[in-house]
Amino acid sequence: MGLLDIFRARNKPTAHLAKERLQILIAHERSQGEHGESDYLPRLKNDLLEVIRKYVVVDDRAVQVQIERHDGMDMLELNIVLPEKKPSAIDKD
Amino acid sequence: MGLLDIFRARNKPTAHLAKERLQILIAHERSQGEHGESDYLPRLKNDLLEVIRKYVVVDDRAVQVQIERHDGMDMLELNIVLPEKKPSAIDKD
Repeated sequence: MGLLDIFRARNKPTAHLAKERLQILIAHERSQGEHGESDYLPRLKNDLLEVIRKYVVVDDRAVQVQIERHDGMDMLELNIVLPEKKPSAIDKD
Repeated sequence: MGLLDIFRARNKPTAHLAKERLQILIAHERSQGEHGESDYLPRLKNDLLEVIRKYVVVDDRAVQVQIERHDGMDMLELNIVLPEKKPSAIDKD
């Protein structure tokens, strides 16, 4: 089962959904025996937000961040509630 | 159940894992009645890869991309197999 299937199962058609939101999940899975520090995830988070801001309006206060670390896997989740009004003026290069 | 729980359940401790990999999932959930085009996901994909390359070496051939669109939800998944040798020289601004 692919990640998208899981995601789809979790995010059932949202008839109840009031807000638009953007969810971002990053997982760095290390190979066996590798105990490196992929400490770049928090920094990557900021860069990702910057990139995403090219496309949608993101209020810092509307961003929830979760970082988890387990054996061999670092995970970063961003949950962003998007503003109701769509900024049609935002354009991409 | 949070997204991280699902992700964790799916990515069990990977004793068998041979390669390092990076997985990125982005889901844009639209609010009810909103049938907008969040057509930025394919473009966002390229920007994401650029950002990720600041931190890890990514071979274009090692990137799998999936984009799905369902009622009210657009999803973009990137699966990246990272090279075995760790480039210690890569540094962030």
